[in-house]
Amino acid sequence: MMRSLLVTVAALALSACATTVAEPVAPQVAADVPPSLPAGERAAPDGMRWLYASGEAAGASIQTWRQLADYAIAVSRQRKVPQSVPMGLPDVQGGIGTPSCVAADGTMKPFAAVFDVDETVLLNNGYEYWAAYSGKPFVPEEWAQWADGGAGIAAPVPGAVTGLRRLREAGITVIFNTNRNSENAAGTAAAIEAVGAGPAVHLDNLFLRGDDAMGSRKDGRRATIAERFCVIALAGDNLGDFADVFNADEDAIQARRAMVARGEYAQLWGNGWFLMPNPVYGAWQKGSLDEVFPPETRWMPSDASTAPNIMNESE
Amino acid sequence: MMRSLLVTVAALALSACATTVAEPVAPQVAADVPPSLPAGERAAPDGMRWLYASGEAAGASIQTWRQLADYAIAVSRQRKVPQSVPMGLPDVQGGIGTPSCVAADGTMKPFAAVFDVDETVLLNNGYEYWAAYSGKPFVPEEWAQWADGGAGIAAPVPGAVTGLRRLREAGITVIFNTNRNSENAAGTAAAIEAVGAGPAVHLDNLFLRGDDAMGSRKDGRRATIAERFCVIALAGDNLGDFADVFNADEDAIQARRAMVARGEYAQLWGNGWFLMPNPVYGAWQKGSLDEVFPPETRWMPSDASTAPNIMNESE
Repeated sequence: MMRSLLVTVAALALSACATTVAEPVAPQVAADVPPSLPAGERAAPDGMRWLYASGEAAGASIQTWRQLADYAIAVSRQRKVPQSVPMGLPDVQGGIGTPSCVAADGTMKPFAAVFDVDETVLLNNGYEYWAAYSGKPFVPEEWAQWADGGAGIAAPVPGAVTGLRRLREAGITVIFNTNRNSENAAGTAAAIEAVGAGPAVHLDNLFLRGDDAMGSRKDGRRATIAERFCVIALAGDNLGDFADVFNADEDAIQARRAMVARGEYAQLWGNGWFLMPNPVYGAWQKGSLDEVFPPETRWMPSDASTAPNIMNESE
Repeated sequence: MMRSLLVTVAALALSACATTVAEPVAPQVAADVPPSLPAGERAAPDGMRWLYASGEAAGASIQTWRQLADYAIAVSRQRKVPQSVPMGLPDVQGGIGTPSCVAADGTMKPFAAVFDVDETVLLNNGYEYWAAYSGKPFVPEEWAQWADGGAGIAAPVPGAVTGLRRLREAGITVIFNTNRNSENAAGTAAAIEAVGAGPAVHLDNLFLRGDDAMGSRKDGRRATIAERFCVIALAGDNLGDFADVFNADEDAIQARRAMVARGEYAQLWGNGWFLMPNPVYGAWQKGSLDEVFPPETRWMPSDASTAPNIMNESE
């Protein structure tokens, strides 16, 4: 029963992060656990402990926002026309696009940096508290309520407000490209502005899922932004915030990881692309032990046969 | 029964990361689950999926290693004597030390960068696979076996090998300061060298728990290193890799997070201090929902009373 419960939870986790659903949020606790402790006194899931409450996560995001602002400001001050970061639509199959910073009339486009919102600029602390507290799977109607009404509860990612202020002071336009739904545009703008990360104006510097026909895939929105702007930095917590090609096959776990560490992409991390760690939910939230740990990484101690799982399997 | 099981797992998680125990590793699966699936086919814990198998984690560590190497190389080329990063022992209560880059005889000390090992330079993929596969709690003898024999299985953190090579090419000494035990010095050096991150020589550029009387606290080892070197960068996955003061009260969850984001410390992230994200284990692995989510962050949807946990509580 416990086993089937864990399988159910895993299945819910997988279904909640499919790319056709809004970005968050897989619950990390079992749905039908009879609570003998009040919900608030139960152990929080480790991912939430790390992301929403650890000093480690705060240090990591402060350092990455600093890196991003330092990088973009330095590029904006170069005495030459920079190369835009890739902003698909891909020009070749599997490519990530090669936009230009020079407009058709030969003038220079204005500089911009493009940001995902959830767990990049805003922490969805309130919604994730509810997900863990209630033990419910992802419910689109609840997420919509949070997206509409979370302003003033959602906290900024540490470092984001300072980083965005530095960019704007340097004359770099801040653009948000999120998979929150366009129906929740007003609440999303309000939440961004409530933490001091605004302004955010729908279809001006705020783009959402539903603004085009590509669903949660962001390459089309990126291409639209790149028509008007010279985009020198992208930031997000999901590989889809950089290029759709990474999420073309979310089940190819090892291939997906190998792809980002390959030469052409590897050289972009910290150099135009900036990843904010989010171990709570995402397209990476897949895989059995055998899929996560390829054969050459598996290790057992010399007395492995005394482990309870192995004893059970040999019975 | 399920509830008491979860409590047991939570208790094991807490005990495994106490500072008096070697750094890893709290298991994220229940110990006495009767396996109906072969262990390898069970869902991997989310933290392991993110850290060991996601492209997101690879991008994050590549970017941080790049940031670190860029920073340290730039500082080493400044035409002035730099300020060392803080390298306790603290000179005042709660402080983090103010070492000097100038030796007693007025000469400049050689540049160094100091690194934690586990989940900073090396991924403990083999041991964590075993922890999840077996479902056993942290067993010090098993960890010692892994620390002695993991060379060739442990993978490098993405970006680490390139980053360390860049530092050494720039004339910056690479020093490892780990809470692996000094009895496992040979195996630890072998694992570092097997991924191409060496050399690592005990008591020369490799310092371990047991090298002094301070246990897992690293301030003493940091002070020893700072006597000989001008340390311009520190990197690790745990706040204790930067200053012991952060882990003085691991139970003060919100205070610990607030402390790193305060002015004097906040300005060091990405600017001498570099944090590698590790959501699998660490001193942050504590806290109930109420401790992780302070009152002002808690949110519920309008129909919250229909949630199973809340219905149970009102019965």
